[in-house]
Amino acid sequence: MTVSMYKLSVPVFIRGLRVLAGLLDKAEAHAAEKKMPLEDLVNARLAPDMLPLSGQIQRVSDTAKNAIARLTDVAAPSFPDVETSFAELRERIAKTIAFLETVKPSDLDGSETREVTLTFPKMKFTFAGDDYVLKFALPNFFFHVATTHDILRNQGVGIGKLDYLGASI
Amino acid sequence: MTVSMYKLSVPVFIRGLRVLAGLLDKAEAHAAEKKMPLEDLVNARLAPDMLPLSGQIQRVSDTAKNAIARLTDVAAPSFPDVETSFAELRERIAKTIAFLETVKPSDLDGSETREVTLTFPKMKFTFAGDDYVLKFALPNFFFHVATTHDILRNQGVGIGKLDYLGASI
Repeated sequence: MTVSMYKLSVPVFIRGLRVLAGLLDKAEAHAAEKKMPLEDLVNARLAPDMLPLSGQIQRVSDTAKNAIARLTDVAAPSFPDVETSFAELRERIAKTIAFLETVKPSDLDGSETREVTLTFPKMKFTFAGDDYVLKFALPNFFFHVATTHDILRNQGVGIGKLDYLGASI
Repeated sequence: MTVSMYKLSVPVFIRGLRVLAGLLDKAEAHAAEKKMPLEDLVNARLAPDMLPLSGQIQRVSDTAKNAIARLTDVAAPSFPDVETSFAELRERIAKTIAFLETVKPSDLDGSETREVTLTFPKMKFTFAGDDYVLKFALPNFFFHVATTHDILRNQGVGIGKLDYLGASI
């Protein structure tokens, strides 16, 4: 009746990152067909005070790798937010997956009770590791994958819900 | 090093539904201040072929209650998709939470290996219970909560990411 902390995090993140790469593939094909500049998609956002597509993908990457760093003794690589093209965003996704693939199930041993503290400018949250994954890391991760999908749909890209769910993966 | 199937589902769903109710509260206050008709928000969508706000909330509700029905021997109540106002959407959220609160941790015993089959018009997926939660139910649940947030941001409602994360809950 239980699920390991590893199963709850690493493969879920890898799967979501692959979904993200698939969304970029479909978006690129759509842009080529419609002769739409890819930069327009990279910079598209749903509201003036929300992150553009590039920022959503950078946050997916950070959420995944930083969650592992917080839950384990494995250090996450630093990826500066410099991506401005589809090729660079794909590379960011690939580097994040490559890092996650180095994480072993045993690295997560005991992480459900590990104390995780998140510090923001105006507040601080402390969680046990399992609560951190369920109340923060997974909701945040899926927020940015879903918002990437939503930005593309909002821009008229021909993708659908199944592309987000990753049926074919 | 493990998390129960109950912890992975019921409290996560209840928390997300409360976040959703909080988003509606802020949206209603914003609409009142800007003298914006609430129906405009209920019917707002990000793309012509995406569900409007009301549909997103109905899918959050269905994803949560149907996941439990698929994982347990508990029957989920049927809630027809008839909501057209904020009051009715709040009621749908409240009824869904009330159902989830009746689910006992022991109802989920053994559900990680229970076979779950989802049938769509053109395809069929079969999962073990834990994979169903991690690869389908949670991604789908958070998709619709995030998209509700995204629709409101896209409509200019003054909410932020912390309202989605549910910091205060």
